[in-house]
Amino acid sequence: MAVYTDVAAEDLAEFLRDYDLGSLLSLKGIAEGVENSNYFMMTEAGPFVLTLYEKRVSAADLPFFLGLMDHLARRGVPCPIPIEDRGGAALKELNGRPAAIVSFLKGVSPRRATAGHCGGVGRALADMHLKGAGFAPRRPNALSLGGWRKLVEGCGRGADGIEPGLSDEIASELAAIEAGWPSGLPSGVIHADLFRDNVFFDGDRLSGLIDFYFACNDLFAYDVAICLNAWCFENAREFNVTKARALLGAYRRVRPFEAAEVEALPLLARGAALRFLLTRLFDWLHPVDGALVTPKDPREYLARMRFHRGVESAAAYGLLDR
Amino acid sequence: MAVYTDVAAEDLAEFLRDYDLGSLLSLKGIAEGVENSNYFMMTEAGPFVLTLYEKRVSAADLPFFLGLMDHLARRGVPCPIPIEDRGGAALKELNGRPAAIVSFLKGVSPRRATAGHCGGVGRALADMHLKGAGFAPRRPNALSLGGWRKLVEGCGRGADGIEPGLSDEIASELAAIEAGWPSGLPSGVIHADLFRDNVFFDGDRLSGLIDFYFACNDLFAYDVAICLNAWCFENAREFNVTKARALLGAYRRVRPFEAAEVEALPLLARGAALRFLLTRLFDWLHPVDGALVTPKDPREYLARMRFHRGVESAAAYGLLDR
Repeated sequence: MAVYTDVAAEDLAEFLRDYDLGSLLSLKGIAEGVENSNYFMMTEAGPFVLTLYEKRVSAADLPFFLGLMDHLARRGVPCPIPIEDRGGAALKELNGRPAAIVSFLKGVSPRRATAGHCGGVGRALADMHLKGAGFAPRRPNALSLGGWRKLVEGCGRGADGIEPGLSDEIASELAAIEAGWPSGLPSGVIHADLFRDNVFFDGDRLSGLIDFYFACNDLFAYDVAICLNAWCFENAREFNVTKARALLGAYRRVRPFEAAEVEALPLLARGAALRFLLTRLFDWLHPVDGALVTPKDPREYLARMRFHRGVESAAAYGLLDR
Repeated sequence: MAVYTDVAAEDLAEFLRDYDLGSLLSLKGIAEGVENSNYFMMTEAGPFVLTLYEKRVSAADLPFFLGLMDHLARRGVPCPIPIEDRGGAALKELNGRPAAIVSFLKGVSPRRATAGHCGGVGRALADMHLKGAGFAPRRPNALSLGGWRKLVEGCGRGADGIEPGLSDEIASELAAIEAGWPSGLPSGVIHADLFRDNVFFDGDRLSGLIDFYFACNDLFAYDVAICLNAWCFENAREFNVTKARALLGAYRRVRPFEAAEVEALPLLARGAALRFLLTRLFDWLHPVDGALVTPKDPREYLARMRFHRGVESAAAYGLLDR
C-alpha cells in the first residue's frame, strides 16, 4: 500500500484544466504499487488512474515507460493508455512530482493463480514481446547481471544474518550465473516485473497488464523466467509443473521458442530468482525510515533459486519438446 | 491511509454471489477512513465501497450505523446507502470481519474549505438532524462528558510532556465544562465527526456525507459545535468568523436555533475542542505497534479550546441574532 504524496482536490482540479477530461468527480488514494503514489480518479470523461512518481523511479526513464505503454496499447496490448493533455504531453508535473494520467483497466489480480491464469500470462507476455517491436527508445536493464553484482556488494555479509553461509552461497551463485549467462538470444522490450499484482483478470480472461516501471530491453526468455518464478510456485517452495506447462505452452503458441532459449531457461530462471532475492535482501538490510511498505522476506526467492539450481533441463518446467 | 484487512478477489467474488450486483470488475484498497478497511469496488451494477470493520468499531453498533445511513438516504440525505443481499442483510461477514457494501458517492473533500463549503456543511447538518427524526434505535454518545473523564484518567500526567501544566489545564477545563454543560437542549441523531474528510463536494455543491461510525444520540448544538471546530479555523489557530457565519446561518435557515442553544454554543464548542484534544492526546500517548496511521498532533485542538474559552457569546461566531 502506498500513497506517499497527498494530492489536494483543488490542485488536481486545476491540473485537469490542461486536459479534455471534464471536471473532477472523485479522487481516492489507492493501495496499488509500492514505488509511486496512485489515485483512482473519476472525471466526467470516466475513470482513470493518476500516478505521481516518487523518488525510486528515475524521472529520466518516464518518457520510455509512458511511450512504451502508448505503443503497446495502440497495438492491442491491454495496458494503461497514457492520456495526453491538450498540448500532447502525457508526462506532467503535480505537487512538485512528475505525474501522469492513464486509462483505468477493469479486472482483479487473482490471489490464487490457476493454470488457466498462467496460460493467460504466457499468451499476453509473448504478445507483448512481439508488439514491442518497432518501439525505438531503448532502456538497458539496470537490474540485470551488472546490477546484481552491485547489489551483492551493497549487502556485504548481511545475508549471513538471515541464514549462516548465505553470503557465500550468493557469491558462488552469482559467479556461476555470470559464467553461464547466454548471449545472442532473441531480445526486445520486456516487462521484467510481471507479478500477480500487475496482471488483471476479468473472470478467466486476462484484462490488463500494468506497472511497466521496470520495463527495459533484455532477453525475452529472461522475462519468461521471471514469470516462472512469479506464477508457478506454491507456498513459495513447491514448483507447480502444470502451471509452468500452461504458461510456457501458451507463450510459445504466440511466439515459438528458439532451441537456445529452451536450453538457457534453467539458468535464466536461477538468475531471475537471484534478482528478486537480491533486491529483497537489500531492502531488508537497508530499511527506509518511515517507509509505508514492509520489506518482503527474501527467503522466498532463495528457495526458488535453489530449486532452479537443481533443474537439469527445461523438461522440468514441462517443456517437453519445441 | 488504512487497509488493515487484505481481501482476495476470489473471496470477494464468492461473497458477491449473495448479492444482485453481477460479477466483480475491479477492487482497489483505498486510503480512506482510519478505523476500517475500505475498498473501491466495481461490479457489473456499478461502483460501490466495500468496508471491513476493524477492531476499534464495536460490532454491536454496526446495525445502528447501517440502519441510520439507510434511514437518512431514503429521506434524501446524500449519504452512502447500505446494499442488502438477496436475504435483506446489509451487515455481513468477509475474511472473519463484519463487512458491508455501500453505494459509491461522487465528490471530493476540499483541502481548503471556503465559506461556500461551510454553508453547505451547515445546511446538510441541519437537514440530517431533522431527517434523523423517526429513527428509533438509540446509541448513547460514548465520547461525551463521561467518556472525557475516562480519557483524562487514561492520559495521567502525560499531557505535561506536550506542554508543562497542560494536565492541570485539562482537569480544570473538564470541571468547568461538566459544571456548565446544558440540559434540555434539542437532541436527536448527530453525526459527531463531520470533518472535512467526511464531506464530499461536486464543485460547490455538497454531494456526500460519509463515515457515520461515531453517530449517536446527543445534542444537535453539540454537532454544530464540532463543525465550528472542524471547518472554521485557519492554520489550526485563527478563527474565521466569515466561515462560521456561513455555517451557522445556513444551518438555522433549515433548523432554527433555540435561544438556549445559542447561549450554550461557546461552552459546547469548548467541549468539542476538548473531546478531540483528548482523543488525540490519548492516541499520542498510547501509540499502537504497527499502526498504519500516524497519531495527529493534539495541540491543534488545545489552541481551539483556548479560543472558545475566551468567547463570551455566540456573537463571536457571527451569530448576531436569532
